[in-house]
Amino acid sequence: MSEALIRQRVDALATAFRAKDIDGIMSLYAANVVSFDVGPPLRYSGAENKRRAWQEAFAAYAGPVDYEVRELDVDISGELACVHSLNRVKGKLTNGHLSDQWLRWTACLRRIDGVWLVVHDHVSVPADLSHGHALLNLTP
Amino acid sequence: MSEALIRQRVDALATAFRAKDIDGIMSLYAANVVSFDVGPPLRYSGAENKRRAWQEAFAAYAGPVDYEVRELDVDISGELACVHSLNRVKGKLTNGHLSDQWLRWTACLRRIDGVWLVVHDHVSVPADLSHGHALLNLTP
Repeated sequence: MSEALIRQRVDALATAFRAKDIDGIMSLYAANVVSFDVGPPLRYSGAENKRRAWQEAFAAYAGPVDYEVRELDVDISGELACVHSLNRVKGKLTNGHLSDQWLRWTACLRRIDGVWLVVHDHVSVPADLSHGHALLNLTP
Repeated sequence: MSEALIRQRVDALATAFRAKDIDGIMSLYAANVVSFDVGPPLRYSGAENKRRAWQEAFAAYAGPVDYEVRELDVDISGELACVHSLNRVKGKLTNGHLSDQWLRWTACLRRIDGVWLVVHDHVSVPADLSHGHALLNLTP
């Protein structure tokens, strides 16, 4: 039951992402979410900062954005859930280039007043630490 | 009670890290751990692959490695815990350079036969996606 609800939440996030529907996306986050996002800084907290990060992400794309969730794993106990997946984000950037990237996504959700909300998320690409490169072309 | 136990587990990980004690580190992981690690690939699973990743990480350092855990957050419900922190890893590399990096660390733990084990972890640095850089010099 809880797992089906959480998978619905992730589906809703993907749908909102494709529609660039910021309010739809934000309905998934707790007010005090702590985020380790794909871009800097190392860590930020609060739904307003999360909203700003999403707005900046969408501003980089000229047109529609495609979003695919793969290998979604949902682990639940009581009021807490750990979710992770590989998410493909694909779209035309404002500079004309086509961007096509797989991101690793981990989210911790808590059931607050009956609603599952993301209290922590972590989004990244792997790095080549010795050369300082972000590895943007890896595929599952 | 569970939170104290998990904080002890994280302390034990830090101690094992500083001592390059692979078996001590590995005692924290579930056999089927799914990892989004700081380096490639995007995703791997299984304790043997995790052990190999740790061995490669340690092989990069010439001497002792310092490890500091900051802003550790532990959220628990029933048999599941979500843990995240900013971890500073500092040491002299085999190429003679001093490496000093903050990593974002998220771990999902499950209590299995009474022992809290990491079933998923995610370790990263932020990326500058438009330039393909891993951002290695950020501080909390």
